[in-house]
Amino acid sequence: MDQFKNVTIVKKANAYFEGKVTSRTVLFADGTRKTLGIMLPGEYEFGTDAAEVMEILAGELEVLLSGESTWNVYTGGDRFQVPANSRFSLKVKIVADYCCSYEE
Amino acid sequence: MDQFKNVTIVKKANAYFEGKVTSRTVLFADGTRKTLGIMLPGEYEFGTDAAEVMEILAGELEVLLSGESTWNVYTGGDRFQVPANSRFSLKVKIVADYCCSYEE
Repeated sequence: MDQFKNVTIVKKANAYFEGKVTSRTVLFADGTRKTLGIMLPGEYEFGTDAAEVMEILAGELEVLLSGESTWNVYTGGDRFQVPANSRFSLKVKIVADYCCSYEE
Repeated sequence: MDQFKNVTIVKKANAYFEGKVTSRTVLFADGTRKTLGIMLPGEYEFGTDAAEVMEILAGELEVLLSGESTWNVYTGGDRFQVPANSRFSLKVKIVADYCCSYEE
């Protein structure tokens, strides 16, 4: 069972799109942070500040990165990168459990 | 910003009701555990093994405990107890962010 040890978790959730996308922030001793989140089926668009690595823990979604013309499909075990200061679109097909790492 | 420090968090989410209720497990150094979760609007029924204290961080829901005849309304900042080995019904009116503490 994959776990993050010796971390700090912010109690309150981050919520977007009327709660269809939610996450909680995990702070690591080295100053880095990740969010662990859930996306219900639906279509969403997000913007980044820092670059992100999105790891899909379960579910299925299609992703279109800014400036690209091809939607890519990701399922549990997959990961994709999103550049800093960009936008990306998501079509969540099956409830997605994810871990987002911020490269700051 | 309320945080849990020096904890272990299980990476993968717990999901119920097609992802409309999800949570993540937080393990404390003293052996206790809590879950931090989200409930989308809807009606749900849950059973307990251990007794629980449900703290509502945000949102609004109505709760009917097993053996009771009155639904109680809870909103952000409220908490309620659920006995061990019992069932309880929930009507979530506004997306609920919660922290559940297990008394084991």
